[in-house]
Amino acid sequence: MRKTVSAEALDQIFRSARTYNGWTDTPVEERVVRQLYDLLKWGPTSGNSSPARFVWVRSPEGKAKLAGLAAEKNQPKILEAPLTVIIGNDVGFADALPKLMPHNTEATQKAFAAPGVSEVTAMRNGSLQGAYLIIAARALGLDCGPMSGFDNAGVDRAFFAGSQIQSNFICSIGNGDPASVFPRNPRLSFAEAGHFD
Amino acid sequence: MRKTVSAEALDQIFRSARTYNGWTDTPVEERVVRQLYDLLKWGPTSGNSSPARFVWVRSPEGKAKLAGLAAEKNQPKILEAPLTVIIGNDVGFADALPKLMPHNTEATQKAFAAPGVSEVTAMRNGSLQGAYLIIAARALGLDCGPMSGFDNAGVDRAFFAGSQIQSNFICSIGNGDPASVFPRNPRLSFAEAGHFD
Repeated sequence: MRKTVSAEALDQIFRSARTYNGWTDTPVEERVVRQLYDLLKWGPTSGNSSPARFVWVRSPEGKAKLAGLAAEKNQPKILEAPLTVIIGNDVGFADALPKLMPHNTEATQKAFAAPGVSEVTAMRNGSLQGAYLIIAARALGLDCGPMSGFDNAGVDRAFFAGSQIQSNFICSIGNGDPASVFPRNPRLSFAEAGHFD
Repeated sequence: MRKTVSAEALDQIFRSARTYNGWTDTPVEERVVRQLYDLLKWGPTSGNSSPARFVWVRSPEGKAKLAGLAAEKNQPKILEAPLTVIIGNDVGFADALPKLMPHNTEATQKAFAAPGVSEVTAMRNGSLQGAYLIIAARALGLDCGPMSGFDNAGVDRAFFAGSQIQSNFICSIGNGDPASVFPRNPRLSFAEAGHFD
């Protein structure tokens, strides 16, 4: 059996990690974004469906466009961050299965083609991949500020027109300003969140 | 800026981690399950909504009940595993906001009460928490076998009757049998999965 990773790593990815609402000027280099993707891509998805799609928004024009579609309180969290990624779910993910599931493409496509299955698969697994992104960013020493307060339909039109990609959530990434972190809220106890059977 | 966690930790949680389909007899102690929850609970969710609920199925009766509601190929993956957790999304999660968001309970409850918002919030954030569970388990040296091939409505009736909890996916946890791992499938390239804007 493998060992537990170091206490420092557990702190960095879970126990001490916090959501940041403000950012320093430190940029996120393209090399680091590619390193981040090359980690998160390995997280498991149903039938290797890998439905998440990513728009890494870093240009002033892109940030202004995204901030204009966000809740007012989220606008500065986008404009000040070096990078905000839009995580979308591609409901047409099955088109990529010849690459993703080369030995069993047709049966997998058939399973995902049942009514409603591609939608729920895209949302479930695209969200899993969004969480892998958050953890992978933290593991690389980056801070995250995930947000779901924005106009999903507007973002779909502005960033995903002509595709079957639906925006899921957005996440600012960079070197967070410690002063922008809110006091930590409580979590549910083990017993409040579940039980043994 | 924080450092990257060790290459060994990145391997263990992402790069070398695999989905297991068979299991050794090594049990998962209750202490370890509680340790796992005490890590995953810190992962961020929208408004600290924390909608995931967990049934940690380890009794022979519980396993038989769950396996009977699973796709045939998944039945041995449940029966042989020391533990299979059902990850459910509580659509009624807003009832817990007095604990989870004590300083802003009413405004947060109001935001989540808009039509359709609690459902999508539960699915998005419950799935994020399911991914935190997978990563936290791997970080603790455990192996995972996540599955979505089962009768969701049947599992809801059998395990979540009288609640607003909806099953999302299930995940066997334990000491995986290396011989049960399938060859690894390719992932999308950075350019196939997104772009800069």
